[in-house]
Amino acid sequence: MARRASSLSAEREERLSARRVTKDAWSLCRNPFPPLEVVDEGGLERIEATALRILEELGLEFQNARALQILAANGAEVDFETQMVRFDRALVKELVGKAPSQFTLHARNPERDIVIGGNSIVFAPVAGPPNCSDLDRGRRPGTSQDLIDLIKLHHTLNMVHTAGGTVEPQDLPVESRHLDFCYNLSTLSDRVWGARAIGRTRIEDALDILAIVRGTDRDGLAERPGLFSVINVNSPRRVDAELLNGLMAMSEANQAVIVTPFTLAGAMSPVTIAGALAQQTAEALAVIAFTQMVRPGAPVIFGGFTSNVDMKSGAPAFGTPEYANAVLVGGQLARRWKLPYRTSNVTSSNAVDAQAVMESSMSLWAAVLAHGNFIYHSTGWLEGGLTTSFEKVIVDADMIGGIRAWLNPLDLSDDALAFDAIAATPPGGHFFGADHTLARFKTAFHPPLLADLRPHDTWRLDGGKTATERANERWKTQLASYEQPALEPDRKEALDAFVARRCLEIEARGLTS
Amino acid sequence: MARRASSLSAEREERLSARRVTKDAWSLCRNPFPPLEVVDEGGLERIEATALRILEELGLEFQNARALQILAANGAEVDFETQMVRFDRALVKELVGKAPSQFTLHARNPERDIVIGGNSIVFAPVAGPPNCSDLDRGRRPGTSQDLIDLIKLHHTLNMVHTAGGTVEPQDLPVESRHLDFCYNLSTLSDRVWGARAIGRTRIEDALDILAIVRGTDRDGLAERPGLFSVINVNSPRRVDAELLNGLMAMSEANQAVIVTPFTLAGAMSPVTIAGALAQQTAEALAVIAFTQMVRPGAPVIFGGFTSNVDMKSGAPAFGTPEYANAVLVGGQLARRWKLPYRTSNVTSSNAVDAQAVMESSMSLWAAVLAHGNFIYHSTGWLEGGLTTSFEKVIVDADMIGGIRAWLNPLDLSDDALAFDAIAATPPGGHFFGADHTLARFKTAFHPPLLADLRPHDTWRLDGGKTATERANERWKTQLASYEQPALEPDRKEALDAFVARRCLEIEARGLTS
Repeated sequence: MARRASSLSAEREERLSARRVTKDAWSLCRNPFPPLEVVDEGGLERIEATALRILEELGLEFQNARALQILAANGAEVDFETQMVRFDRALVKELVGKAPSQFTLHARNPERDIVIGGNSIVFAPVAGPPNCSDLDRGRRPGTSQDLIDLIKLHHTLNMVHTAGGTVEPQDLPVESRHLDFCYNLSTLSDRVWGARAIGRTRIEDALDILAIVRGTDRDGLAERPGLFSVINVNSPRRVDAELLNGLMAMSEANQAVIVTPFTLAGAMSPVTIAGALAQQTAEALAVIAFTQMVRPGAPVIFGGFTSNVDMKSGAPAFGTPEYANAVLVGGQLARRWKLPYRTSNVTSSNAVDAQAVMESSMSLWAAVLAHGNFIYHSTGWLEGGLTTSFEKVIVDADMIGGIRAWLNPLDLSDDALAFDAIAATPPGGHFFGADHTLARFKTAFHPPLLADLRPHDTWRLDGGKTATERANERWKTQLASYEQPALEPDRKEALDAFVARRCLEIEARGLTS
Repeated sequence: MARRASSLSAEREERLSARRVTKDAWSLCRNPFPPLEVVDEGGLERIEATALRILEELGLEFQNARALQILAANGAEVDFETQMVRFDRALVKELVGKAPSQFTLHARNPERDIVIGGNSIVFAPVAGPPNCSDLDRGRRPGTSQDLIDLIKLHHTLNMVHTAGGTVEPQDLPVESRHLDFCYNLSTLSDRVWGARAIGRTRIEDALDILAIVRGTDRDGLAERPGLFSVINVNSPRRVDAELLNGLMAMSEANQAVIVTPFTLAGAMSPVTIAGALAQQTAEALAVIAFTQMVRPGAPVIFGGFTSNVDMKSGAPAFGTPEYANAVLVGGQLARRWKLPYRTSNVTSSNAVDAQAVMESSMSLWAAVLAHGNFIYHSTGWLEGGLTTSFEKVIVDADMIGGIRAWLNPLDLSDDALAFDAIAATPPGGHFFGADHTLARFKTAFHPPLLADLRPHDTWRLDGGKTATERANERWKTQLASYEQPALEPDRKEALDAFVARRCLEIEARGLTS
């Protein structure tokens, strides 16, 4: 008897636990609606004309001798002394025209391949914050354990498409930290992941690791690209030497470069959104043109990150009305150049509170209406990108789940129109017990992660927890449900050997760029 | 010296206080973007065909003898025994075609007149909850003081257009409570307000009060309507006797009736959104057709309130993906019938937390993308409409302010495109001190109500307040800044006399419907 009770209880526990974690299948996401065009054709032309004039008359500074040689050899007007590079508009159009408007990034699990471009939306978790936080342990510098937990947590969330999100593991040495990122991203998940393009070596290591876990070589990777990396422009109009080394390694290998100028209106770009967008467009097009000099046809994404500063303090503001407008016009400009478009889910808030959700929902709606193809930092970003929050991961995942459910087409079959069910229910009656309801109620509606729909007194007597407190419980349940995806033993062995060797090499000789 | 210092300090206090409250001018709001069409023409036809079939074959129950006589006299097929009324589709089309597609509601201050229909968006505060809450006093039954405070608070907020929001003052007698509503709404604000149409008498009293404060008579009100009232359908397919008495009083007087079926999918309508929408459309069209029998050309608004229940508990869920879809398709159907469209800002949350903002932002974005013309409960609604929250008023007002700023057209002048400012700033430089920035920074960006953009440590050392805690401070500052709009002394005198007389009458004889 005792044994049976215990077994029943275990069964019940399993059922409850299955209910407590999200188990929706991973799937690609398509935007069925036309993009929202907030600026007319004439307006777009004015922004573009200003961008091209910036490229022709002012140019960008490329702080890298090899890049300058490639730029000069491919027809850009290079001043080797000042490192300033100007681009004729015909050259820009010719080069950008070589970039694919849509491409696939391949995962080690082929069922997790993602499409970038067209009406596809890829939700990619946060990357990059130095700190992380949760309600139990507060805000703190990120550690290797946090990095592992965040990658595992995201692997349990199927509303996001790629592996991540990350935090900077500040307990690990800087020079070999990229190996820990690549190792964890490629073993704890079987999805596509990204690498940081600071210098050539970090990208070469990422490519070697990717080749090992996918059981292929560099040619195989070039044929079926699988790595993405963000190249920020140090706005205004400067591209950093080490980022250019990383970019060249990425594009030579035919991997996806996300070119993202960092144009905060009032700080790194003009205080007007139109001016910031003109500058963003110029900077993005110049660097995208450069990728096509490195390798014609290499996959590249037009990135937008224009927001505004708070003019009282100079602090960056995110998820503002100005940000939403910039996201939407940025999408129009990306489509004009037939390029996939990257945008983000951002907030300046210090807490997972009403401000965070207000700003993030503004960002997400703008991103979706703009036909963003790659929505970076879509889960977990807090505090202008200085912190990855475990609770924010769940709140964002819930918002994204809702938006994805909303994008599903409405069933307008006779069965769904339900004339017979309406006829069978008398005026003033109800549909709770109707056959039509009973046949559908289990799957009729999208199940949210956090919503507590209980009456106020029931909720209050059960602790009166806010959604952020429930998110704190939820990420733990999700994390506990994590299962590591299998990796072929020979690949795992090769990977371990590669990482061990590279760690020793870096310890002995340092990291050369 | 002492006197001067005190005067300077008062000046400073005044400046600070001006900064602490929102002083943006009241203005109409236009939606410059095309509505988002989530269902194609064929889909709309299928929903409409089902709705018309419901009207022809099943009909609605009208629980009011006088209404049944009007319906029969105007060509509807009436069964006086069952009170069931069926409508031929040609009759529905003819009658609904008489309703105006756009109209103006007049305020006692002509500068606060509002346009209903077309691309106009009216944001109207919450109405109706029995409870109210704030962080200091918790959740409690509403009182007359809360009603007054909420009307005053909203009068300081210019992102909303009408007077409100309200809470049920449970310390006042039920039978004369409507007089308190009308008195406070028409003296504490100079904007358009709404009355509750439960029975004829409440509407007659509201019209008398409106005539007095506007210095006009019933003919003047009919010529320049200024009152709105929601008529809910007791879905499925039942219209209540007292609501019909209220409706007839409203439409006879040429005032605006907002016809809103309460079609919760899975409870009062089929569990499928398509079925709920078909039923909503049928119910709305029937009651709208009836308004046009009462007075052809009377202003009327097509209301949508379709959401879903949580199928585990039967509790209503709001701000869900299903709700957003219903809002958008509802807008398409309203436009198809050339009627202004009412929708809402809703949430099920028990607290002003991440859930509340997630659900409210889903509602607001859907409402704006659907071209909602009258967005009811746009501020303050909590707990599925059971509570008016003071903090939620501020959070919602902040979201609405942001969305309104986003709807403003982007400046694409040469000046805004800022080529010269970009040319004058070297690569890697910054625009903080640029002339272009300095000339614009004070008004460059929309000022949010709640965003705290300070660095994490500064924020934390200053108490680490969440946005909801800041909203608690903010509503008090706003309320303290309230100034009562002037009312001509003779009208005020007449109003006081009218209300005193009616209170005595009701006390003596009760409220007759």
